Amino acid sequence: MMDKLKIGGVELQNRLFIGTGKFPNKKIIPDVIKSSGSKVITMALRRVDLNSKEENIIEYIPKDCILLPNTSGARNAEEAVRIARLARAMGCGNWVKIEVISDNKYLLPDNYETIKATEILAKEGFVVLPYMSPDLMAAKSLVDAGAAAVMPLGAPIGTNRGLQTKELIRIMIDEIDLPTIVDAGIGKPSHAAEAMEMGAAAVLVNTAIATAGDPVKMAQAFSLGVKAGRLAYLGKFGPERKYAEASSPLTGFLNE
Amino acid sequence: MMDKLKIGGVELQNRLFIGTGKFPNKKIIPDVIKSSGSKVITMALRRVDLNSKEENIIEYIPKDCILLPNTSGARNAEEAVRIARLARAMGCGNWVKIEVISDNKYLLPDNYETIKATEILAKEGFVVLPYMSPDLMAAKSLVDAGAAAVMPLGAPIGTNRGLQTKELIRIMIDEIDLPTIVDAGIGKPSHAAEAMEMGAAAVLVNTAIATAGDPVKMAQAFSLGVKAGRLAYLGKFGPERKYAEASSPLTGFLNE
Amino acid sequence: MMDKLKIGGVELQNRLFIGTGKFPNKKIIPDVIKSSGSKVITMALRRVDLNSKEENIIEYIPKDCILLPNTSGARNAEEAVRIARLARAMGCGNWVKIEVISDNKYLLPDNYETIKATEILAKEGFVVLPYMSPDLMAAKSLVDAGAAAVMPLGAPIGTNRGLQTKELIRIMIDEIDLPTIVDAGIGKPSHAAEAMEMGAAAVLVNTAIATAGDPVKMAQAFSLGVKAGRLAYLGKFGPERKYAEASSPLTGFLNE
Amino acid sequence: MMDKLKIGGVELQNRLFIGTGKFPNKKIIPDVIKSSGSKVITMALRRVDLNSKEENIIEYIPKDCILLPNTSGARNAEEAVRIARLARAMGCGNWVKIEVISDNKYLLPDNYETIKATEILAKEGFVVLPYMSPDLMAAKSLVDAGAAAVMPLGAPIGTNRGLQTKELIRIMIDEIDLPTIVDAGIGKPSHAAEAMEMGAAAVLVNTAIATAGDPVKMAQAFSLGVKAGRLAYLGKFGPERKYAEASSPLTGFLNE
Repeated sequence: MMDKLKIGGVELQNRLFIGTGKFPNKKIIPDVIKSSGSKVITMALRRVDLNSKEENIIEYIPKDCILLPNTSGARNAEEAVRIARLARAMGCGNWVKIEVISDNKYLLPDNYETIKATEILAKEGFVVLPYMSPDLMAAKSLVDAGAAAVMPLGAPIGTNRGLQTKELIRIMIDEIDLPTIVDAGIGKPSHAAEAMEMGAAAVLVNTAIATAGDPVKMAQAFSLGVKAGRLAYLGKFGPERKYAEASSPLTGFLNE
Repeated sequence: MMDKLKIGGVELQNRLFIGTGKFPNKKIIPDVIKSSGSKVITMALRRVDLNSKEENIIEYIPKDCILLPNTSGARNAEEAVRIARLARAMGCGNWVKIEVISDNKYLLPDNYETIKATEILAKEGFVVLPYMSPDLMAAKSLVDAGAAAVMPLGAPIGTNRGLQTKELIRIMIDEIDLPTIVDAGIGKPSHAAEAMEMGAAAVLVNTAIATAGDPVKMAQAFSLGVKAGRLAYLGKFGPERKYAEASSPLTGFLNE
Repeated sequence: MMDKLKIGGVELQNRLFIGTGKFPNKKIIPDVIKSSGSKVITMALRRVDLNSKEENIIEYIPKDCILLPNTSGARNAEEAVRIARLARAMGCGNWVKIEVISDNKYLLPDNYETIKATEILAKEGFVVLPYMSPDLMAAKSLVDAGAAAVMPLGAPIGTNRGLQTKELIRIMIDEIDLPTIVDAGIGKPSHAAEAMEMGAAAVLVNTAIATAGDPVKMAQAFSLGVKAGRLAYLGKFGPERKYAEASSPLTGFLNE
Repeated sequence: MMDKLKIGGVELQNRLFIGTGKFPNKKIIPDVIKSSGSKVITMALRRVDLNSKEENIIEYIPKDCILLPNTSGARNAEEAVRIARLARAMGCGNWVKIEVISDNKYLLPDNYETIKATEILAKEGFVVLPYMSPDLMAAKSLVDAGAAAVMPLGAPIGTNRGLQTKELIRIMIDEIDLPTIVDAGIGKPSHAAEAMEMGAAAVLVNTAIATAGDPVKMAQAFSLGVKAGRLAYLGKFGPERKYAEASSPLTGFLNE
């Protein structure tokens, strides 16, 4: 019953993207990915270390998944571009999530530098997924720069606070032709479902799964929440009402 | 991975209850029920008419489902009790959802009359699920009266407005030992997931499915949303934060 | 520009009621009351101690204020009635705020016992203001019982969490002819303004003022917030819109 | 009790800025301004027409107010700069609100072009107040560009939907040293109070006053709401709690 998402020439059945940071124990990651059903897995390039067995996150990611290296650590466009090229050179493929962050407290992305990096990398053949502060005009610039999707934040990274920027994301979904993937802030499956019900193309979740009591269970919960939201979006909502409307006939039962 | 819900001596795998009102075409109901996976189906007794083939809602409900006749149309305890007895006499079983409503605009239940009806019917061996305005002290009285669960409303019936009474429901879940089943107002799978994440035992949905563009798809969406919320509740949430916390290492990547 | 509120035969210019509990230093209470402009002051009868100079809250209340003794400590109707009668006998006048609370964690009122106490005391000539869990049908019973106003809670006492029960209060305001006074939970002037904008007749604030850094300043802030909300209600709001609408002409300026 | 706001070398007692668009009848504007107490009045330069008596908005603005011409109609930085210079040349003073908007549906500002215009005009001695989509990094760029304050939107212009972008504004207030003035979307005095309680320096209101049933009353309501919020911010809030905490002593009254 579910439609597929197309990004960068690939068709994805599953609209949940998973991050690999913050897990207390990396050995759980394969089970988390399996439980989530996710086929797009993001990781910081820094964690990809071909010389160290322990730190190399890639060996925990199934071969049938698309790697989505992110440029975390980059503080401007130039650094992001260097990290992206390095990732491709290391065999991580040509997908990249641009993260340019110079704010240390709320870790909010720099849209302007992100647009610059996107433009450069898209021309080099990368499938660029830019993480951004939700802003319609910046999103339009990302479209022009060649992004494959836009990834607005719902709330600051790691806060688990849900769609605090809902209105701005709603407008982006309404106005931008690229897929809108909500990234950061999603703390509960209900948040993920809400994003999908609005018409988001996918969501990326990391902290909420990694810090859960049972990350494997939580990964499945998010997977179901994302599917629920997408199906509901496709199934089309009836109207909201201010006054009640009975589901059952209310009057006259006993007095007929 | 999912635990079962026990009510009235029955173990339920599926925590979505479905209502049968408002469907433009009753013929779709079997597909909706199948798609939802629901095993508890509520209907107004008035619609159960053994003499009329067309109106008899029961023939659209699979045999393996528990019937949950509701007392809609009752304006006080006495009328609710009469309808419940009639339902049992007609072969609908001994489950009953008490609805006592004398407010015609918002269709809000009368907790006091509901408590009275619950007490009488519980003594007669019914499995009583009372629909109520969320209120901790009324819920405690329903426990004392012998209810099998409590069914607070999230918003007025048919409004699709979600958990407007979230705080009062949260308190009921925290303080009441019976299952809390959120009924009325749930308009989207994200609302259903949110209720389950809070610890609700189940949700009852009718209008949101019946008035959807594609009720079969929407029923499945709700089914997934309910499962997502329950699994997340079992998987235990990590903390919410005010400030950001990086999923990926942020500093020093290129300057090491 | 402001209309007056009539309760119990009295016309009130100021729609902020003040509570006297929780102040670290009672000596500040007269300044708080003056700063708030409030003319209705509630206090626990227990704090009215004619034999002890230190504990007697009444000497901190200006003579031109209406005393609103509350029945805190009462766990059922009978106890509330006894406290009310005692208050009147002690010279506190014939206004009384009914509080019947047997829940020790959330301190939620018992609507059923509150209705009983209201009926008895209204017949004895009291001006009865019952504190209640918001519920339309219980409010209707309080009207029938002779209440002078209804006082639904916005959130549990002392939580400062605002109008968590907004939807139920909105319905009460819409359906009940008596003044609706929002009591408990109001933590900020914006909450008080929001209640008044919905059509609440008044608000009662205690914790938010008593626990503020500067209670005198906060009392004035609440006074202004209440007036702002009432004036806005009287001034009638324009429509909310989903799409933007320019305040200024947007096109053609330079190209005409 | 209220502190003053300093912008562009001027001390302002009143933290409510008023817009002059959308009034059905301009003759009411002087009464609205008087009722609001506002001393900073924004208007579209297009409406300032020295040759037409009817259209010239300036004659409705008291002489003791600061004029804040806005650049509405500008679709890029260059056009905004031209309008600003024209306004100064026409005698409107050296304050200017930058609006650069090329999105016709939600009327969302272009942060990038706004930063460019701000930089140019600040160097020319203007007191520049840029209207922006809330985004911490863009706000930092505006600080660097020489803005006198930053003006994030609460919701799209004219929607009256309140602080939909609350989280992003909160972060800006927390991190930016310039005054943050919330502009657009504020539909009720409670919204204005909420912005001020968060630490906003001022708010700008237009549609909500202009489209009210009684704009003069509504202007006063907003004035009070802004003061309430500022005073509360200065008075410092007590904590929010999850569980209740009694204002009055609850136990033992009658059993001592």
